[in-house]
Amino acid sequence: MPLDSNHLIGKEALLLLLHKEDQLPEKLRQLDWKYCKGKVGSMDGQKVVAAVETAAKNQGIIKSSLYRETHALYHAILEAMSGVTRGNNQIGTLLRTVGLQFAIVRGNPYKDKEEGEWIAVALYGTIGAPVKGLEHEAIGLGINHI
Amino acid sequence: MPLDSNHLIGKEALLLLLHKEDQLPEKLRQLDWKYCKGKVGSMDGQKVVAAVETAAKNQGIIKSSLYRETHALYHAILEAMSGVTRGNNQIGTLLRTVGLQFAIVRGNPYKDKEEGEWIAVALYGTIGAPVKGLEHEAIGLGINHI
Amino acid sequence: MPLDSNHLIGKEALLLLLHKEDQLPEKLRQLDWKYCKGKVGSMDGQKVVAAVETAAKNQGIIKSSLYRETHALYHAILEAMSGVTRGNNQIGTLLRTVGLQFAIVRGNPYKDKEEGEWIAVALYGTIGAPVKGLEHEAIGLGINHI
Amino acid sequence: MPLDSNHLIGKEALLLLLHKEDQLPEKLRQLDWKYCKGKVGSMDGQKVVAAVETAAKNQGIIKSSLYRETHALYHAILEAMSGVTRGNNQIGTLLRTVGLQFAIVRGNPYKDKEEGEWIAVALYGTIGAPVKGLEHEAIGLGINHI
Amino acid sequence: MPLDSNHLIGKEALLLLLHKEDQLPEKLRQLDWKYCKGKVGSMDGQKVVAAVETAAKNQGIIKSSLYRETHALYHAILEAMSGVTRGNNQIGTLLRTVGLQFAIVRGNPYKDKEEGEWIAVALYGTIGAPVKGLEHEAIGLGINHI
Amino acid sequence: MPLDSNHLIGKEALLLLLHKEDQLPEKLRQLDWKYCKGKVGSMDGQKVVAAVETAAKNQGIIKSSLYRETHALYHAILEAMSGVTRGNNQIGTLLRTVGLQFAIVRGNPYKDKEEGEWIAVALYGTIGAPVKGLEHEAIGLGINHI
Ligand SMILES: [Mg+2]
Ligand SMILES: [Mg+2]
Ligand SMILES: [Mg+2]
Ligand SMILES: [Mg+2]
Ligand SMILES: [Mg+2]
Ligand SMILES: [Mg+2]
Repeated sequence: MPLDSNHLIGKEALLLLLHKEDQLPEKLRQLDWKYCKGKVGSMDGQKVVAAVETAAKNQGIIKSSLYRETHALYHAILEAMSGVTRGNNQIGTLLRTVGLQFAIVRGNPYKDKEEGEWIAVALYGTIGAPVKGLEHEAIGLGINHI
Repeated sequence: MPLDSNHLIGKEALLLLLHKEDQLPEKLRQLDWKYCKGKVGSMDGQKVVAAVETAAKNQGIIKSSLYRETHALYHAILEAMSGVTRGNNQIGTLLRTVGLQFAIVRGNPYKDKEEGEWIAVALYGTIGAPVKGLEHEAIGLGINHI
Repeated sequence: MPLDSNHLIGKEALLLLLHKEDQLPEKLRQLDWKYCKGKVGSMDGQKVVAAVETAAKNQGIIKSSLYRETHALYHAILEAMSGVTRGNNQIGTLLRTVGLQFAIVRGNPYKDKEEGEWIAVALYGTIGAPVKGLEHEAIGLGINHI
Repeated sequence: MPLDSNHLIGKEALLLLLHKEDQLPEKLRQLDWKYCKGKVGSMDGQKVVAAVETAAKNQGIIKSSLYRETHALYHAILEAMSGVTRGNNQIGTLLRTVGLQFAIVRGNPYKDKEEGEWIAVALYGTIGAPVKGLEHEAIGLGINHI
Repeated sequence: MPLDSNHLIGKEALLLLLHKEDQLPEKLRQLDWKYCKGKVGSMDGQKVVAAVETAAKNQGIIKSSLYRETHALYHAILEAMSGVTRGNNQIGTLLRTVGLQFAIVRGNPYKDKEEGEWIAVALYGTIGAPVKGLEHEAIGLGINHI
Repeated sequence: MPLDSNHLIGKEALLLLLHKEDQLPEKLRQLDWKYCKGKVGSMDGQKVVAAVETAAKNQGIIKSSLYRETHALYHAILEAMSGVTRGNNQIGTLLRTVGLQFAIVRGNPYKDKEEGEWIAVALYGTIGAPVKGLEHEAIGLGINHI
């Protein structure tokens, strides 16, 4: 039942995010997993959620016709946002803005194939005042069964 | 005043954490920054805080004689923990345990040298039931001026 | 001082909410308690609060001329909302919407009459993406002395 | 894709909890769903989690050999606890205790059979000072895809 | 219905706390309000709650035989603690300790006498690492109708 | 390393806030510390943050050209707001409004001069329904190294 240390879905999502765009993490190349990347900048939390959901649906990471897949993704996004906001999931209401890249990976990270598919949402970028430069980095990762 | 995209302190801390132990992120090799890595596994939040603080003091990342440095580190640790716990900073009280690696980096990530030193605490590992394998990955990053 | 197991104010509010509109919970019929029901759907937390407050005032559950009654009701509403939102009291800012029924009950649920009046606010309905069907149920209950 | 208003999994769990033990909600009798009830009283959040998890495994509601099922249940339990604690999931650390009944229901509440199985955890009881009678009612409901 | 600016219950509690022990805020001397002061130092949130509750009962600020008074006080204490802990009400579990003075005031701060009695709990002191000097100040205030 | 009990930065900020405008706390007169006062009333959290930041920059409490100073101030403001809102930093989204005075103090509160400068943000005023009089007092204090 343990995680397969060669197929860590969170790590793959994070490396996909942190590496240059043309550098695909080695593992992701070898696995038959679905993934995509995107960007979103906003003071509005719902735009961050929407950007990740739209990418996941448009890139075929999740089936938009199934609520259970949207539900799995949604909770993974909220968990990732809570890392970026360090707990409260508030952005503009606290006079801050985010400039984020996101990566979404869907695959089976456990050795036991019965554990099925999981989804990871990683967010990385900056958070700070709505003034260029008044910001520092932030990260978040949400993982859910799907 | 912007972040220097070649000296991203959070990214360096995250890559230090996600790479194999003998692979040092390129940038960290070139910069005259302080950093260290460590591990902690616990159901007890205060042990996670203590492990990171002890490493930072023992490895000379912060001066233990100055409260302002301990204060900067402490808030960075709490912010990182809120990513790992996805908001509530509770571990054992919710019947879960963490197995984490941590990286601490201290340096000057802004182009303007007057922005001075900052500290990044990154946590990466697993969180889940206190049973081997019943766990998934988690990440957290806290950044503070020091 | 214990709760009277025949006069559980929270349970009455919940059953009033969960039963069909023409089915009044047995206990509520017998007690000389004040109660009302209503509906609200919104992505906006303040509209949920306003809908419950307005109903409570219009139906004579609380005296609108007394702040202490509004205060008691307000905290009961927030506690109920935290059940529905599972902790953060955020709705639209996280790209979700609620479709809720609410019940408000005011009465004396303790055996000792000196414990006086209490108010219960129960919310039940759905929460999810702002798309019909992409939602699941949620509940919340707030109880306060009044 | 909408919820089937005759198969509301959350409502069934709540009615199972609020009704007398020998009264089974009508719908649950007709459906081929799995469910169980139990009790737990504690000042210790992890005991509440453990009691629900143990019941779910022992009564065959979830397969203990699959982490994805434990994961689905765990998050449903935490969501239910956040209703009971009204947000912070802390019990004894804030000098309060809970006396709860719980119901767990597993079934397919959506009209579209492809939406598959979902799990609902409902908690109902009292929360208050660790002194008999110094307490009021609380409820919580967590729902997850499984 | 407005607050009487000469009878601000929160301000009185805060000044009672911030002034030297032999200096009683002017207003409190003139009003027929109940109040007391005390101290508590702990890494354990429940000890803070208990210290304030015990003082309030022993000094006759609240009637211990009425749960509604304990309930009013309890929520005021939690609100004050959330100021001290800046949101999460966790102390030792995050490896920090508090050294607090507290003041409790009970009176009628509104011009309209029908608004009745309210209770204020103020906490002031230090929070920090469990090492002398590694700490800074913190404050909290909770106000409730009683 | 301990706090100098004659130079308590938080207490000075609180007394500056709680006293009449023409009464300057004794200590502040003697110390060579920077401080200012201001007012803000809003249902919008970002306006509270902005009002305090603008005052701090305009009154020369912090250097607006340095992000590290804005960062120190920002976290102090959020900590103070969490006292006022008792944890969630939400105002208008929960149908409430604040009428606050704020004080900002910058100085060196520790005996050891190497501890350098710290900043305190104190907020005091009322929080309640957006109707005159339906409100009670609230306080918050955030302290950070700068
Ligand atoms: Mg999880
Ligand atoms: Mg920051
Ligand atoms: Mg209560
Ligand atoms: Mg959900
Ligand atoms: Mg209040
Ligand atoms: Mg601090």
